[in-house]
Amino acid sequence: MQGVGAGSIVRRNENGQHECVTDQVVIEEPLEIRIGDRAIATTMRTPGNDEELAAGFLLSEAIIRQRADLQSLATSTENVINVELGPTVKFAPAAAQRFGTISSSCGLCGKTSIEFIRQQFPAIELPAAVKMPEATLFGLPDKLREAQSNFARTGGIHAAGIFDFAGNTLIVREDIGRHNAVDKAIGRAFLDKLLPLGRHVLVVSGRSSLEIVQKALAAGIPIVAAVSAPSSLAINFARECGQTLIGFLRPPTFNVYSHIERIAFDD
Amino acid sequence: MQGVGAGSIVRRNENGQHECVTDQVVIEEPLEIRIGDRAIATTMRTPGNDEELAAGFLLSEAIIRQRADLQSLATSTENVINVELGPTVKFAPAAAQRFGTISSSCGLCGKTSIEFIRQQFPAIELPAAVKMPEATLFGLPDKLREAQSNFARTGGIHAAGIFDFAGNTLIVREDIGRHNAVDKAIGRAFLDKLLPLGRHVLVVSGRSSLEIVQKALAAGIPIVAAVSAPSSLAINFARECGQTLIGFLRPPTFNVYSHIERIAFDD
Repeated sequence: MQGVGAGSIVRRNENGQHECVTDQVVIEEPLEIRIGDRAIATTMRTPGNDEELAAGFLLSEAIIRQRADLQSLATSTENVINVELGPTVKFAPAAAQRFGTISSSCGLCGKTSIEFIRQQFPAIELPAAVKMPEATLFGLPDKLREAQSNFARTGGIHAAGIFDFAGNTLIVREDIGRHNAVDKAIGRAFLDKLLPLGRHVLVVSGRSSLEIVQKALAAGIPIVAAVSAPSSLAINFARECGQTLIGFLRPPTFNVYSHIERIAFDD
Repeated sequence: MQGVGAGSIVRRNENGQHECVTDQVVIEEPLEIRIGDRAIATTMRTPGNDEELAAGFLLSEAIIRQRADLQSLATSTENVINVELGPTVKFAPAAAQRFGTISSSCGLCGKTSIEFIRQQFPAIELPAAVKMPEATLFGLPDKLREAQSNFARTGGIHAAGIFDFAGNTLIVREDIGRHNAVDKAIGRAFLDKLLPLGRHVLVVSGRSSLEIVQKALAAGIPIVAAVSAPSSLAINFARECGQTLIGFLRPPTFNVYSHIERIAFDD
């Protein structure tokens, strides 16, 4: 699997013996995202799909909105990706200033920024008849796991998957960072001109923080389902922005934190 | 428990019924750390122990090194903490520039920064006779869990604990962010003038990334033990800096990735 290395380690096994074994470890390396000469963000990520990561990040930060806004993505030196924006994109220094205290993995910072994000992306609005069946929702954690490598399932790599309301897999991506996995997934959809994903659900293998929900909104995704807990800010943001937020999705149980009207229940 | 809020949600239970229940959620809010008029970092954290978080962060970033370097910590407005450095501390804009692309939760970024950190903190050197017994190590995950609240154990809050080589608990802290939990733990030790913690082990409830190991080094901690997997950079950094890195600490098994000489085995 890409993004995994091997090394020699000592393992204490269940019989109390110590054995020297070759272990797989997930690769963690920095990726610097540059616009022109300016490094706008650096994130610790698992190498691979760097173009997707950069595209998803720029989308989440409202720097690009449509495919034409992104002229090119090119890796120059190792762990550096150079972004060329389309000629009509206004990349204001004031907006860039936000990166002074924000990274792709640290979340939106401060109420000003949260308000900023709300202004950048429209709230989700769907016809009342558009619902996702409960039974389909229950099938998604298994589909996410099946799309992951064996190593990822045991080794703690985070996964993010985008599925349609019928449960079909659109994209699954993995990364050592939760936010990076989401950036790669929505970045792929962006590059393929699939946005907005108004009939899709984002499933994440861990918790849902504010930033996960916000990235889904940037891609127009109406439902976010996490295998683990949501944070308070994630819930508040989802409620305000018209998103359905599901937590502890562990069939046959789950919790709904916002906009339950989008789930079609069996009973 | 501090840092936890309650909200009304809909739960689908194991009998297939839907019930309206009150659920606990972990609070996530931004904390802005200011030195003078300058916001040097913002992190999404669980409120509480903010002074510890700020102290641990500044220590990890090599801005402060000893208790006297920190004149005062004061909360002015909500979610902002103001740091006053000691009169002899040189806070260079060049060093601060690093924050342009770094946050407390995004890790050290780039090879330049990693080299920078190595230069800031001495590698761990201990007499050969100083070892931690394997049996003591096995007791630590339970001690960490026992120190957590019930909610934290089930709800996905990260925990970081510092224990001595006899297994005694020095500090346990929790946060929605892994790095924040570590910052709070080492920050508490820093404020109490307990550094360097040369006969202690840092135990984290999740994975160990580069930044976790680096924060331990900043506090002079020779052993880092994680319940889950380490990253490649964490392993390389620990090897170079003389730290023992243990992963998948799940009694009766564990893996040793570096400096095994510091563990006293039973057999």
